[in-house]
Amino acid sequence: MSIQFHPDRLFPADTAVRDIARRLHKAVEDLPILSPHGHVDAAMLADDTPFPDPTALLISPDHYVTRLLHANRIPLDHLRVGGTTTVTPQAAWRTLCDNWHLFDGTASGYWLTHELVTVFGITDTPNAANAADIYAAIADVIATPQFRPRALMETFNIEVLATTDDPLDPLDAHVTLARDPRFTPRVIPTFRPDVYTKFWNPIFPELAARLIAEAGDNHTGYDGYLTAIANRRSYFREHGAVSSDHGTHSPATLHLDHDEAARLFDKGINRTATREEALAFEAHMLYQQALMSLDDNLVMTLHPGVHRNTHTATLETYGPDTGHDIPFAVDYATNLGPLLNAVGTHPDFRLVLFTIDETTYSREIAPLAGFFPSVYIGAPWWFLDAPDAMTRFRAATTETAGFSKSAGFIDDTRAFCSIPARHDAARRTDAAYLARLVAEHRITENRAHEIIVDLVDAAPRRAFTL
Amino acid sequence: MSIQFHPDRLFPADTAVRDIARRLHKAVEDLPILSPHGHVDAAMLADDTPFPDPTALLISPDHYVTRLLHANRIPLDHLRVGGTTTVTPQAAWRTLCDNWHLFDGTASGYWLTHELVTVFGITDTPNAANAADIYAAIADVIATPQFRPRALMETFNIEVLATTDDPLDPLDAHVTLARDPRFTPRVIPTFRPDVYTKFWNPIFPELAARLIAEAGDNHTGYDGYLTAIANRRSYFREHGAVSSDHGTHSPATLHLDHDEAARLFDKGINRTATREEALAFEAHMLYQQALMSLDDNLVMTLHPGVHRNTHTATLETYGPDTGHDIPFAVDYATNLGPLLNAVGTHPDFRLVLFTIDETTYSREIAPLAGFFPSVYIGAPWWFLDAPDAMTRFRAATTETAGFSKSAGFIDDTRAFCSIPARHDAARRTDAAYLARLVAEHRITENRAHEIIVDLVDAAPRRAFTL
Amino acid sequence: MSIQFHPDRLFPADTAVRDIARRLHKAVEDLPILSPHGHVDAAMLADDTPFPDPTALLISPDHYVTRLLHANRIPLDHLRVGGTTTVTPQAAWRTLCDNWHLFDGTASGYWLTHELVTVFGITDTPNAANAADIYAAIADVIATPQFRPRALMETFNIEVLATTDDPLDPLDAHVTLARDPRFTPRVIPTFRPDVYTKFWNPIFPELAARLIAEAGDNHTGYDGYLTAIANRRSYFREHGAVSSDHGTHSPATLHLDHDEAARLFDKGINRTATREEALAFEAHMLYQQALMSLDDNLVMTLHPGVHRNTHTATLETYGPDTGHDIPFAVDYATNLGPLLNAVGTHPDFRLVLFTIDETTYSREIAPLAGFFPSVYIGAPWWFLDAPDAMTRFRAATTETAGFSKSAGFIDDTRAFCSIPARHDAARRTDAAYLARLVAEHRITENRAHEIIVDLVDAAPRRAFTL
Repeated sequence: MSIQFHPDRLFPADTAVRDIARRLHKAVEDLPILSPHGHVDAAMLADDTPFPDPTALLISPDHYVTRLLHANRIPLDHLRVGGTTTVTPQAAWRTLCDNWHLFDGTASGYWLTHELVTVFGITDTPNAANAADIYAAIADVIATPQFRPRALMETFNIEVLATTDDPLDPLDAHVTLARDPRFTPRVIPTFRPDVYTKFWNPIFPELAARLIAEAGDNHTGYDGYLTAIANRRSYFREHGAVSSDHGTHSPATLHLDHDEAARLFDKGINRTATREEALAFEAHMLYQQALMSLDDNLVMTLHPGVHRNTHTATLETYGPDTGHDIPFAVDYATNLGPLLNAVGTHPDFRLVLFTIDETTYSREIAPLAGFFPSVYIGAPWWFLDAPDAMTRFRAATTETAGFSKSAGFIDDTRAFCSIPARHDAARRTDAAYLARLVAEHRITENRAHEIIVDLVDAAPRRAFTL
Repeated sequence: MSIQFHPDRLFPADTAVRDIARRLHKAVEDLPILSPHGHVDAAMLADDTPFPDPTALLISPDHYVTRLLHANRIPLDHLRVGGTTTVTPQAAWRTLCDNWHLFDGTASGYWLTHELVTVFGITDTPNAANAADIYAAIADVIATPQFRPRALMETFNIEVLATTDDPLDPLDAHVTLARDPRFTPRVIPTFRPDVYTKFWNPIFPELAARLIAEAGDNHTGYDGYLTAIANRRSYFREHGAVSSDHGTHSPATLHLDHDEAARLFDKGINRTATREEALAFEAHMLYQQALMSLDDNLVMTLHPGVHRNTHTATLETYGPDTGHDIPFAVDYATNLGPLLNAVGTHPDFRLVLFTIDETTYSREIAPLAGFFPSVYIGAPWWFLDAPDAMTRFRAATTETAGFSKSAGFIDDTRAFCSIPARHDAARRTDAAYLARLVAEHRITENRAHEIIVDLVDAAPRRAFTL
Repeated sequence: MSIQFHPDRLFPADTAVRDIARRLHKAVEDLPILSPHGHVDAAMLADDTPFPDPTALLISPDHYVTRLLHANRIPLDHLRVGGTTTVTPQAAWRTLCDNWHLFDGTASGYWLTHELVTVFGITDTPNAANAADIYAAIADVIATPQFRPRALMETFNIEVLATTDDPLDPLDAHVTLARDPRFTPRVIPTFRPDVYTKFWNPIFPELAARLIAEAGDNHTGYDGYLTAIANRRSYFREHGAVSSDHGTHSPATLHLDHDEAARLFDKGINRTATREEALAFEAHMLYQQALMSLDDNLVMTLHPGVHRNTHTATLETYGPDTGHDIPFAVDYATNLGPLLNAVGTHPDFRLVLFTIDETTYSREIAPLAGFFPSVYIGAPWWFLDAPDAMTRFRAATTETAGFSKSAGFIDDTRAFCSIPARHDAARRTDAAYLARLVAEHRITENRAHEIIVDLVDAAPRRAFTL
């Protein structure tokens, strides 16, 4: 086949090291996928609706793919982003194929290739000439019963798949899936309260009011708000959730006394809070939810440090999650101080730290996870979920914190078909990293086998209490 | 020969990967040099004056060389820096040769070696004993007609060479060169307005007054200033310039309304502006010039994040650019927000981001260039223009942004004879990086060939509209 | 033997590069250890008391070891940290052995293995089953005369060992050792004034009063304080000290005029200083001591950027240095400005910069050391004193600053038996790094030999004026 998909992909070039990497990968290649954080839609699985066309499946909703095409002067509506229909799905697909070379060397290119080959049986490198044929081939596959979402879950060998959900989501889809005795994978919700804690969200007052009304146990104001969050966390827990997910601006944590917090909350509701007050309230609510987790045992996952929707015109035309979120430097060491001082050694608290600021790996995250029993090291995600970046991550964290505090891999994806590709890439990268340690006589190959199995299987179960 | 100059230099040790790297390098080894940003003096080429002595050519003006000797307790006047004549050129040359070992492992040592071998035919490692002989050999070469600047341009196979020029420079040298039918390389000016936008420059009022007087179309104050900048940009464009170059303190961008900007400008003129006001005005003028570029199509290049002339005593004795500029951490993500929101997706805007803060590669620059069509990734420069640093650069940017948004290599040098060495080192480093991707089955060797040719040839033409 | 301890450990996998690394390591393998910064107790050597039990020797005082066990939910009192006696030494030892796997891939695991094999002759990987046997074997070794501290100094081939001492320490132990004609290693004190310069230290007023009373030459207040510090620095110098060590919060330096400094000092004494004033005074005292060093020639070593004792409950129960110090990002470029402007090119000033913020290597530390003759590049320490981290350090600093400004390796340890392991790991890592440069034809193997010998032997003598 002409498409680049070699059995030794991502393994080191040195033949001795490669041989070790092959053996290590073999040990985990077929282990079930545990996906404790991601953005697949539970309703899609509950309804088991067929996937729509190839473009809607692989291009339009995947901002990893559309952003790089956009960066090369292709308008987002030519990719049917944000519900636009300026071009046909076929035309959008052809645009991708015609620009396939842009993805050389990227994580997205690697995943797409993996999907095309293993899921759809494509063997030619996409280009403008074969775009229509590939489109047709994928469309044929999509139409088969084996390609329905639930069937694919089993084909992909996904044992656990966490979705990310609004706190007021009734979780009906999760209930449907849990009640189906023929469907064995666990699809679990994740409590994501971000929009209810950010005053700068234009509809914060409405959201908070609705939250209080629905779950505030007849309390009002800040008390009702706190009660409602605790109630909904419990509801999620009862419906299988193992974690709450926090995309805060910074990792700031802050313990305000009740009256001060209530005062800020009222300013948020009245839209009179300053930026500093908004950040203080967000930091306070992160702290509060760490306390709540001592009761409901939801693992807290944190991924701060991104300016969201930086290009207003794109946001207005195409909506959020369309490729213009840009990371910035973060400081975990100082910001997490209040929270870790309060609950960092509590046996029931668990905090998984994610970063897209690589500088924090060796400077802050490994030192924190290397002391606090509650702190786990989140996998490299988003811009860092790629072979070289994942290798840097291991090299930067292991020497301080070892392997035991790793929270395992998370795919964090809304691109359902990319899940196996992403997990396999992570396994290959870890195999390559461990093979180097073996070749440098830093660990034995036997231990490397145990470690890679632990990273793939036990580590996410441990960190996420699966 | 005893000097270290192997045909496989900078290629990976693994023989299989090295073979691939050799083949990739072969594909670009003889391609013309495109140098869209640098500091060679256009008058030197226009006048075609013979180079002075070896010390004046290779040591005194090159702060990469003199700084490391200075760091090892050699006074700058022993190297004839800043026009000092305490020692003879021969004595300064002997100092370099006697300290040749200090440059082992450095980029400067690599370039100097390349120059000595390929330009001057030196085959012995310099030392105190052979210093006089090497000096004489170089002096002989310099005296030949083939070593006149214009002849060397052709020998070096430089197709395009950009200089960096004061906005009020009449560009006579560029005109002379452009009019000479026997001189085929393009020598193009670059608009560098920095000294006219920084209030903390002691002579800002005089410079601004002169700018307004010469190009303000009889307007005065801020209006005359804006008019003059736009006029001079156009003048540069008419004389072949393709870019404006901005060495701002930070990458801050800011849109002030006209009256507020005019108010700040007056404070700058009156020397009453605070540091914050000076930075605000600089940020505003960066923004303004991005808008101007929509008219004149000058590509904007940005390289912030350096404390200039940090050692006052050295500045006073030897002048600027004498080795004591020190980088600091920068934040592109937040600072570029206003500018990219305004013109980031405009088809006529181009912004090349340079950094000497490596942390921004994966965290900010690749994500920005991976969405905004206007943003190109500048080559590692200054302290990062070295084999390992360039390799880290590729690894940190490619997985997010691919290769297409690379602006190609720039040498940024005032050391004319080092231009081929620098470009060859970049080509070798890219060959080595790509060879690894091929060996790890991440791209095909055919694609790697296309990519390296693109990086050397098409990428700078694309980003700099050459 | 089952324990992982291969003669080629830490060398690159590629056989050609490994062969070069072996030869380079051979050249320095048996050179004496120069340890110009560390935390061994001089009294232990002066009294030559036998080491206590294996747990007290290898576990309880070593926060590198206890922190990772604590991170894996083992309470610190189960390791007899901070003088606790909840469990027996044997039980604590068994806990370590039972959790030996947690240290795979870490620097601590590497050092412990090295110690067990080379110092105690252990050949089995520790586990719960053999814990008692290993404990007994180590206890036997400890009881022998050859294992007394002074004998070990000679066995370890330690030529110079610097301790870290309170400014008011009478240095009796150092005197005892210096006067013993049968004890040839140099054990030298280091002046560490931190607790006397930080207003936020709860006992600062008492400490300052005692300092002034003991060494203030009858001056009082700030004048007495300055006099006392200068006097004690001289006293240390007279007793063999070569450096003063400064664990400041940030690398801020500041020159306050006498009256302003005196005013702040009084506020510190009266406990009325703000946080800003406390930081300003610390920055001022760093500057003052740089000036003092022009008289007493103590090399200044600086390692800022750590939040100390972040977990209050652990501090209160177990004391400081128990594993919860967390690094944060630092800015040398801006902060060192005042100091380097004043004395950066003074021939009698020496400043060794340490960092645990890796981002500063290429961005700030190499550029600073690459110009200022006074600035030396400190070895990677604490969280970065590990093979991959040390390799990143070399790659990030060498291309700008070469090898000549390296201050050599420091072990910075309170774990006496780990000193040979740490120095050998550094030598192996440098051998591996240099072997790569040789294999890539960037330096000759002859020069690599000279460089590694220089790094191990001449570099620390040069930077620390040994």
